Amino acid sequence: MISDLDALMKARNLDAIVVLGNAEHNPPMYYFTGGGHISKAVLFKKPGETAVLYCNAMEREEAEKSGLRIIPVSTSPLDYLAKNPKTILAERGITSGRVGVYGQTDVSMALHIFGKIKEVQPELELVGEDQDNTIFMYAMESKDAKEAARVKHMGRVTTEVVGMVADYITSCDVRDDEVLLKEDGSPLTIGDVKSKISLWLTERGAVDVEGCIFSIGRDAGLPHSTGNPNDLMRLGETIVFDIFPGEAGGGYFYDFTRTWSLGYAKPEAQKLYDEVRGVYDKVIENIDMNADFKDYQKLVCDEFNRNGHKTPMHSEGVLTEGYVHSLGHGLGLNVHERPWSRHTSSDDNRLKPGAVFTIEPGLYYPEKGMGVRIEDSYWMRPDGTAERLAEYPYDFVLPMKKWKKK
Amino acid sequence: MISDLDALMKARNLDAIVVLGNAEHNPPMYYFTGGGHISKAVLFKKPGETAVLYCNAMEREEAEKSGLRIIPVSTSPLDYLAKNPKTILAERGITSGRVGVYGQTDVSMALHIFGKIKEVQPELELVGEDQDNTIFMYAMESKDAKEAARVKHMGRVTTEVVGMVADYITSCDVRDDEVLLKEDGSPLTIGDVKSKISLWLTERGAVDVEGCIFSIGRDAGLPHSTGNPNDLMRLGETIVFDIFPGEAGGGYFYDFTRTWSLGYAKPEAQKLYDEVRGVYDKVIENIDMNADFKDYQKLVCDEFNRNGHKTPMHSEGVLTEGYVHSLGHGLGLNVHERPWSRHTSSDDNRLKPGAVFTIEPGLYYPEKGMGVRIEDSYWMRPDGTAERLAEYPYDFVLPMKKWKKK
Repeated sequence: MISDLDALMKARNLDAIVVLGNAEHNPPMYYFTGGGHISKAVLFKKPGETAVLYCNAMEREEAEKSGLRIIPVSTSPLDYLAKNPKTILAERGITSGRVGVYGQTDVSMALHIFGKIKEVQPELELVGEDQDNTIFMYAMESKDAKEAARVKHMGRVTTEVVGMVADYITSCDVRDDEVLLKEDGSPLTIGDVKSKISLWLTERGAVDVEGCIFSIGRDAGLPHSTGNPNDLMRLGETIVFDIFPGEAGGGYFYDFTRTWSLGYAKPEAQKLYDEVRGVYDKVIENIDMNADFKDYQKLVCDEFNRNGHKTPMHSEGVLTEGYVHSLGHGLGLNVHERPWSRHTSSDDNRLKPGAVFTIEPGLYYPEKGMGVRIEDSYWMRPDGTAERLAEYPYDFVLPMKKWKKK
Repeated sequence: MISDLDALMKARNLDAIVVLGNAEHNPPMYYFTGGGHISKAVLFKKPGETAVLYCNAMEREEAEKSGLRIIPVSTSPLDYLAKNPKTILAERGITSGRVGVYGQTDVSMALHIFGKIKEVQPELELVGEDQDNTIFMYAMESKDAKEAARVKHMGRVTTEVVGMVADYITSCDVRDDEVLLKEDGSPLTIGDVKSKISLWLTERGAVDVEGCIFSIGRDAGLPHSTGNPNDLMRLGETIVFDIFPGEAGGGYFYDFTRTWSLGYAKPEAQKLYDEVRGVYDKVIENIDMNADFKDYQKLVCDEFNRNGHKTPMHSEGVLTEGYVHSLGHGLGLNVHERPWSRHTSSDDNRLKPGAVFTIEPGLYYPEKGMGVRIEDSYWMRPDGTAERLAEYPYDFVLPMKKWKKK
């Protein structure tokens, strides 16, 4: 919760925090302002005090919507800070001590500003933190019902669009070589499907700023391959569809994956799917409030290892096949945030009340041309129930409406 | 041009440059990779050498599309650099000298990494630059025909969507109080229009990550107000429509503004429009290759000042009415980049061959409930002609198809 910041600052021995950058697509700034067209802003927060936001005078009315204390300046606030560090720090009463620095912005400019600050206030210590564990990663970890409702709404939008995609592709005609055809008789490509996804998300007030993963065959075996737009859609190949849209304007995200095989499944792919599904179910059955997230990663690694798959716990170096990632991650204003589930993550990555997190086991065999992942997002309700934030069927084989296996 | 980087590094006495962050929505990284789903990457470039990109092993195939030399690591490269600064710097042969740092990413993580680097290589100087004038701002300043063609394509998409918006709103029914009505009889809001804009852009492979400005009446008098989604669309009010979409995946932008008054115009608004239009035309008639961009800002300030408007050149402090901004800016992988046109900008902000830039004079009177801006984007062709990259009519009053002034 944002109200945790004061205590977290105290625990980290921070006398102030500074957030740099835009209000949109910049989680720490968005956390304070709730978005808005506020560019290259500078925010200061001291323990027990309301945050103060320096904004460009042209954007003062946008900034005032945040309810923060606003100080308009006649240029970009980042520029203003670089040119007047002494004035601003004096205004804010920050002349010594430790100041945490945050925000998604231009790092060259940030380093330039830090240099100017050090020139005029050498006794000030500017503190950077590992991005997986910044003070904001801790503050944001627990979501209240209002935040969870926003993620849930994105979940509704996401699954609605996924359903439309399933309906669209299974309605296609199929060529003799099992390639799907569009209405005009030309082959359906990954790029065609992705255009529909963007469109349908936009219609519902969601954006896929970072795109989505819609990959088939060998690409499905590479967990972060987004799919080749020119690849043709075919029957009987694994299709990994990982979609993580956010609210337009840079707010909360959802994260969701299904793996499909159109018309029929190769027996080896079906086996892979069944394994992933089995492990997924086992994790869900065992989810407990306050449990250490990595315990489930260990469970999954052990299970997959028993079945002969490589895992991050049982292999060294860069993995290219088997179970090559961790089980899930927190989700909110960042697509990836605390809690973390790597088997090496610290013990404080727990499924605390308010945590919103993904569960997404997968198995990947690029050389065999296949990959499988199943993912849903959950909210740990204060009553200890892990609520799946959107429902969607787990079918692997999607029957084609106008095609039958001979 | 990216090929200018070697000479620019030499001129700035930089022994290497490092770029941090994703390949999408991160102009310096995109400049090297051409986009792609490559997250939290680290790129090194030394004079005369090909850039080297550290990527997450899961994203190696995405990274390989860039044609750069790829080094996959088993975690996020930013994390890898924070944990193994000595190893990576030794691999890259960077142990002393000046290293420029760039990229849009998490500044807390960047500062954390810089600290780790300084611990192991205290003799290394990490250099941050004013974001308006980084080495990339100079390298990117001149666009070749291929880059200009991409901006031009976005211009075509932009003006097509603007035309659709004009057609849509002028087709509406009008209530007795001059409020526009939707097909279902309810009032048309700014939010409704913006949803259509996002949708029509998405259909054409463009995204408005930062939204657009579609503001009416008083909000039109605040140049950076994006418009209140609940405001109703009405006749006879100035509507500032500033739209700056980019290629999906974080590539090149276009930037464009028209001001409209639906059905009829208040005489005072028409006068304001005519003034802005007159100044706009005067600037365009006088555009010369290699001219100092700020000379046109001075021309505009003098002209507006003569007509009794406040301008940044003729007034002190924060301006809230009159001509409150500068004439234009460069445009490319950033919506705002070099050359700059503030009257205080350095003399090297010239309209060089290859420059892509906006011309966008405006006048704002929020207390009178009106504002006007006209903007197009131009490419300074190598032959010395300033080519307007998209054509669109300059009509101020848009007649309503089903309404006539009584």
